[in-house]
Amino acid sequence: MRYLLLIGYDGTDFSGWQDQPGRRTVQGVLAEAAEKVFGRKTAIAASGRTDAGVHALGQVAQLDGESSIPAEKLYACLNRLLPPDVRVLASAGAPSPLFDVTREAKRKTYRYLAYHAPCELPLARRYAARLPYPADVGKMREAGRLLIGSHDFAAFRSSGFTSRTSVREIYDLEVRERQEFYGTFYEIEVTGNGFLYNMVRILSGELFAVGAGKAEGITRAFQTGERKALAKTMPPQGLSLVKVDYGVPLFGTEE
Amino acid sequence: MRYLLLIGYDGTDFSGWQDQPGRRTVQGVLAEAAEKVFGRKTAIAASGRTDAGVHALGQVAQLDGESSIPAEKLYACLNRLLPPDVRVLASAGAPSPLFDVTREAKRKTYRYLAYHAPCELPLARRYAARLPYPADVGKMREAGRLLIGSHDFAAFRSSGFTSRTSVREIYDLEVRERQEFYGTFYEIEVTGNGFLYNMVRILSGELFAVGAGKAEGITRAFQTGERKALAKTMPPQGLSLVKVDYGVPLFGTEE
Repeated sequence: MRYLLLIGYDGTDFSGWQDQPGRRTVQGVLAEAAEKVFGRKTAIAASGRTDAGVHALGQVAQLDGESSIPAEKLYACLNRLLPPDVRVLASAGAPSPLFDVTREAKRKTYRYLAYHAPCELPLARRYAARLPYPADVGKMREAGRLLIGSHDFAAFRSSGFTSRTSVREIYDLEVRERQEFYGTFYEIEVTGNGFLYNMVRILSGELFAVGAGKAEGITRAFQTGERKALAKTMPPQGLSLVKVDYGVPLFGTEE
Repeated sequence: MRYLLLIGYDGTDFSGWQDQPGRRTVQGVLAEAAEKVFGRKTAIAASGRTDAGVHALGQVAQLDGESSIPAEKLYACLNRLLPPDVRVLASAGAPSPLFDVTREAKRKTYRYLAYHAPCELPLARRYAARLPYPADVGKMREAGRLLIGSHDFAAFRSSGFTSRTSVREIYDLEVRERQEFYGTFYEIEVTGNGFLYNMVRILSGELFAVGAGKAEGITRAFQTGERKALAKTMPPQGLSLVKVDYGVPLFGTEE
């Protein structure tokens, strides 16, 4: 039987999602807990990998196994075995035995959180990146509108990583600002049909630089496809995978 | 010369503010950094202590020392020597040599953050407490209004701790609710002329219990002065000292 899991994690102390020998990974600690529940090793896959230091509010994963535990109760069994920086928020049976969480993801939503303050803020340091300058959210929103739609995002990925096509569609991009913790916080929330490697951290870096009046590379990036048209990649701690949408509800009312 | 410091800290890995032999405390790490800046030991005092695990967004502290560093620049020198879970957000000279951050605090604002979700949320676990039940914020606000004003809060302190008087005045109490991280978050923000030991954690526990329909002890607590009239004390990680008000601006525009 194929089980689906809705997972949250604090990425700070993980070397990312993907299992690597000798490293603490989210996939690794989940596999260890699942082995105890099912009595044997199980393959675990996610909607997509997240990098070291990147968080997830609602990652979706699958695992195959046989157990008398009802699918909707599996989350509680796993949570008893997991460290506090990973939790399974809900579990369910897959809608069909061939359902695949990686291939069938229709939309993903990511959030990038940053702030401007006179120094690093202790309560924000694990979950947000500090900007050395304040940003004009009006300018960020204007530049963000250029990204919406279907584009070749070749310039928006880290070099050395390739995928079949670099065309992606962004459905929605919102920029929010709020005062908190003696700092100004900026949140970029972006939804698309998929993202290239480091794409959200690169587009966020460009939008923050635009907001500070230090960049205006988006049009040229689309024209040339060159990474160097854009500002610096933001660091991982500000990034969270918020939600993965499959076009159908997978976890009932928990979703 | 007396310097004033505006300080933020993540209380998770501290045994509270107050220096204790063999323990990692906020006062201790600040004293160590100040000793390096001033070349000798300096006495450091805060507006009030915070317990193990309790955070501060804007604690105010003082220290005495002689240095050629301008008062407004001291914060940056200390930050170079401090661990990332403590930061000095601003520094200034005291308005007078006898100004005392403990005695002259006029108003303090605390925040208590809790959430209801099907399991512990990894990204909230350091800064919020989990409630086993959802809460009705309408009921919490109604009960919160009973607390506003000048009252004998004898029932709202942990036993074994006494102070001259248990009369305190609460100026404002707000309850907010928001959906985030697949959970419902509740924030209690309370401002008063001072708080007894554990008073914010006790009044928050009572308000959350009232919101869940499990308590209505406030009136009886005022009548009897008995701690047992009220619900359980909330755990430390949800509590933050937000702000200390001295009736005059101490840190210029940084405040």
